[in-house]
Amino acid sequence: MKAPRDIREHITNLEQRGLLVRVKRPSNKDTEIHPIVRWQFRGGVREEDRKAFLFENVIDAVREYKGSMLVGGLAASRWVYGLGMGCEPEEIVQKWQHALAHPIEPIMVETGPVHEEIHIGDELDQEGLGLDEIAVPISTPGFDNAPYFTCAQWITKDLETGIRNVGNYRAQVKGRRRTGVCPGPQANQQLNIHWRQALARGKHLEAALVVGGPPVVTHAAVQKVPYGVDELAVAGGLAGEPIALVKCKTINLEVPATAEIVLEGIIRTDFLEPEGAFGESHGYIHPRIMNPVFEISCITHRKQPVFVGILSQVTPSESSKLKEIGMEAMLLRYLKEHSSNEWVAAVGLYEPLVNLRRYVVVQCRRGAPQYEVWRALHGVLAFRQELGKYVVAVDDDIDPKDGDAVNWAITMRCEPAKDVQIIAGREKGHAPPFRVAGHEMDKMEEAEERSADYSVMMMNATLKEPFPPVALPAQEYMEKAKEIWEKELGLPQLRPQRPWYGYSLGQWDAESQEEAELALKGGCYKTGDKLAKRRISMSPKHGKK
Amino acid sequence: MKAPRDIREHITNLEQRGLLVRVKRPSNKDTEIHPIVRWQFRGGVREEDRKAFLFENVIDAVREYKGSMLVGGLAASRWVYGLGMGCEPEEIVQKWQHALAHPIEPIMVETGPVHEEIHIGDELDQEGLGLDEIAVPISTPGFDNAPYFTCAQWITKDLETGIRNVGNYRAQVKGRRRTGVCPGPQANQQLNIHWRQALARGKHLEAALVVGGPPVVTHAAVQKVPYGVDELAVAGGLAGEPIALVKCKTINLEVPATAEIVLEGIIRTDFLEPEGAFGESHGYIHPRIMNPVFEISCITHRKQPVFVGILSQVTPSESSKLKEIGMEAMLLRYLKEHSSNEWVAAVGLYEPLVNLRRYVVVQCRRGAPQYEVWRALHGVLAFRQELGKYVVAVDDDIDPKDGDAVNWAITMRCEPAKDVQIIAGREKGHAPPFRVAGHEMDKMEEAEERSADYSVMMMNATLKEPFPPVALPAQEYMEKAKEIWEKELGLPQLRPQRPWYGYSLGQWDAESQEEAELALKGGCYKTGDKLAKRRISMSPKHGKK
Repeated sequence: MKAPRDIREHITNLEQRGLLVRVKRPSNKDTEIHPIVRWQFRGGVREEDRKAFLFENVIDAVREYKGSMLVGGLAASRWVYGLGMGCEPEEIVQKWQHALAHPIEPIMVETGPVHEEIHIGDELDQEGLGLDEIAVPISTPGFDNAPYFTCAQWITKDLETGIRNVGNYRAQVKGRRRTGVCPGPQANQQLNIHWRQALARGKHLEAALVVGGPPVVTHAAVQKVPYGVDELAVAGGLAGEPIALVKCKTINLEVPATAEIVLEGIIRTDFLEPEGAFGESHGYIHPRIMNPVFEISCITHRKQPVFVGILSQVTPSESSKLKEIGMEAMLLRYLKEHSSNEWVAAVGLYEPLVNLRRYVVVQCRRGAPQYEVWRALHGVLAFRQELGKYVVAVDDDIDPKDGDAVNWAITMRCEPAKDVQIIAGREKGHAPPFRVAGHEMDKMEEAEERSADYSVMMMNATLKEPFPPVALPAQEYMEKAKEIWEKELGLPQLRPQRPWYGYSLGQWDAESQEEAELALKGGCYKTGDKLAKRRISMSPKHGKK
Repeated sequence: MKAPRDIREHITNLEQRGLLVRVKRPSNKDTEIHPIVRWQFRGGVREEDRKAFLFENVIDAVREYKGSMLVGGLAASRWVYGLGMGCEPEEIVQKWQHALAHPIEPIMVETGPVHEEIHIGDELDQEGLGLDEIAVPISTPGFDNAPYFTCAQWITKDLETGIRNVGNYRAQVKGRRRTGVCPGPQANQQLNIHWRQALARGKHLEAALVVGGPPVVTHAAVQKVPYGVDELAVAGGLAGEPIALVKCKTINLEVPATAEIVLEGIIRTDFLEPEGAFGESHGYIHPRIMNPVFEISCITHRKQPVFVGILSQVTPSESSKLKEIGMEAMLLRYLKEHSSNEWVAAVGLYEPLVNLRRYVVVQCRRGAPQYEVWRALHGVLAFRQELGKYVVAVDDDIDPKDGDAVNWAITMRCEPAKDVQIIAGREKGHAPPFRVAGHEMDKMEEAEERSADYSVMMMNATLKEPFPPVALPAQEYMEKAKEIWEKELGLPQLRPQRPWYGYSLGQWDAESQEEAELALKGGCYKTGDKLAKRRISMSPKHGKK
């Protein structure tokens, strides 16, 4: 299986795998499309049943749009995500590690379908052209103050080294040829670095906003790869072949030749403008902040373009699925390899509602020295400032992605007074509360950003001593029962949840085992007879008990 | 709808509602029956899809049994539980409150089906009689050292007042006419009180072990109603009519006339005997402990008796479902009424794996003074020693039974250094670790029981200040989208999970609302024009940011 070279090939692959829902009814991009796909994430639909949605007839209160809109098409599930890089879900992590180690530089081509239609300069101001032509949806109708691009890959270059950056940042639609650009509140976002370079030189920053490149471009763009690494080369590594680029028409940048839509222009450095409010990945509407403005000099697109949107905001979402896979792989590598902690077995960023970053679980191999468990917890805090408000260590029988299992470990294997540490000196993180009146956010931003007035909780929920076995039937009886359930009784298919059989946690002896085996042969009276010989008579002491 | 008067009427009702699976294949009571039903709780089956299982052909390694075995028949789900008291799930709590306030005393009748077959004295020692005749299953094959009664209602009387107690305690099968009885490690279990009265008088304690009475008898027996209240009167209150009782044949006690099986006998007070290991509701195999022994003087049963077992141990289970409903109702009443805290809106005992007691969530109405939130948390600790190792307060937009929603509150609305308190001076509770070698549990029991060396964590995860709205589409758009999803697109039925639409949490102003409405009418450029007038030019200060 190969990675698709454009979004159209990807759509074909999705359909062949039964992962696409085509919607032919006229669908309002502002009031209907995101709410419909959102139900996949708030309607009790299991991840393996989630689909990509292709809306073939897109309208809004004002007009009908050419082309179509794909939502959920990049990461409605691990299956959808994997298909975008030409692999099965279980191959994703390995393929990612390989791509990071073996990036493939993009190649230049003369022309590509992204240039099938070209609109330059004043033409963009005409009714029906400019952003009138592009079906940008409203993600959170009732709250968002505009349509926003959510799958917008911003391409810019370091003014000193010329090394490209591709980053995914939201963009508020503000005019026919003007959007906001929100490179995130953190000063270290890579687009910010380029923007400050331009500001220092008294220039504006050339930028291209790409929609609907090959899926691997999005996969790479949403990850925080180290500064100075070209995400298009990582995307090439994921695809196993170079990404083909064409030169832009009005700026000195290159963009994927098979992209659906490209906006060319400059990000102004001479002023900031209010941008937002918009729903954010922390799950709440982020107040308005001051942000740069993007002025469009040219729009190029394929005929009948496919607008690609990411369902973001409240997690789980397409956005969190996009981030989860790479973040977990990078954190695991940091804890195991860079921190040389052989006891770390797996990590889990908690996805439902919590936005991955704030609840991090580290799974340690049984027998880990307690000080190495604690070092692993500290490692999470050391890795990234944004990661971990609650950090929990569990044993290797606990699935770090399963909230019930983690709660089980916390309640049974963690004694708060001994096994919990609350640590001060952290950032607030990308989350409420926002201590601002109305739209005065920008005045607060810097002070709040730099404060270390926040705390994290570390919980060591690993076993400190042997426990008796988990009270479920032994594996062989559960497996046999599953066979009877599915084959003889014809009941609905099971989805086993760990723990689904009993297993020892160290406190179990040979006599217990013998008695358990004897019982299954109908020998329980023998055990009864044996126990009768171990009676203790009731002394006054016992009577008072 | 009336409460069924016996388990057979209940089985008919279950079948009419589509809540019964009949299994005709020969099923081994020790290796197959509990594992099959266990899959309902570890196999990803939603509560509303869980059924009662009636095994009509029960065997084991040694013999075939007359009659049948019902597992999951009392509380596989709220629907099954409600049917046992003749009501819908949403009526359960109210009906329980009414029964507690209006118990109905049982009445005596001359005879009943429980006496269709009677076996007395030495007859019970014959091969095929005594407990050979009763199909007691092994709950945790591979670990349990014998079959154990799990739905065993023990009837005893206070030797001073004559007031009856009905309690549900496990019973290890030890011989043809001998079982263990495990009235729990806690000295205040009500059977223990009677047993110590008998011990003090140098007598044995008469007891009847009842299997398969009317469902309401089990519903009442598993709840900790105050000492001195006859659970059979509460059961009458639940049924809306008195429970009919017959006199026992060999002891001075009365038992439900329509029960399936009754064992009459004495609980010895002159010695204790090792009993266990057996899987317990804390989810682990509880080590062997010293416990009293029950000697059977008579077995009576209906023809072709239905053996009723409860699926217990690892939660969620039938056992936890039986306890959950009443415990939550009693805790809520305690916090709201007995503690006069009008701010408490709901409580949730966390069921998956955690066994209800160790993770307690209190939902407070928005606007509750913070000190009343804390008083509610302290109330949980004050209510019962066994309740609460982690106690969390949440706002009324958080479903206290939803682990994801509670984690969301903890990560977003709780600052560990300020909003968490760890309190010492608690019991360990019914859970590992057990600091014993092999089977020496009894030597530890008393000291461990009385120690206050354990701690609890209280977390105030309510809002302390206004938050921006939850970043989901407003309710009307999600409702419309659900209609499109289900009626136009014909996609699988949705099960909405809160939050499924956006709502304000106090930080939202009129301008934001106006812009959001304008955007839906296609007016986002107007907002863009307005924002352009609020630009700030980039001073050197901003440049350095």
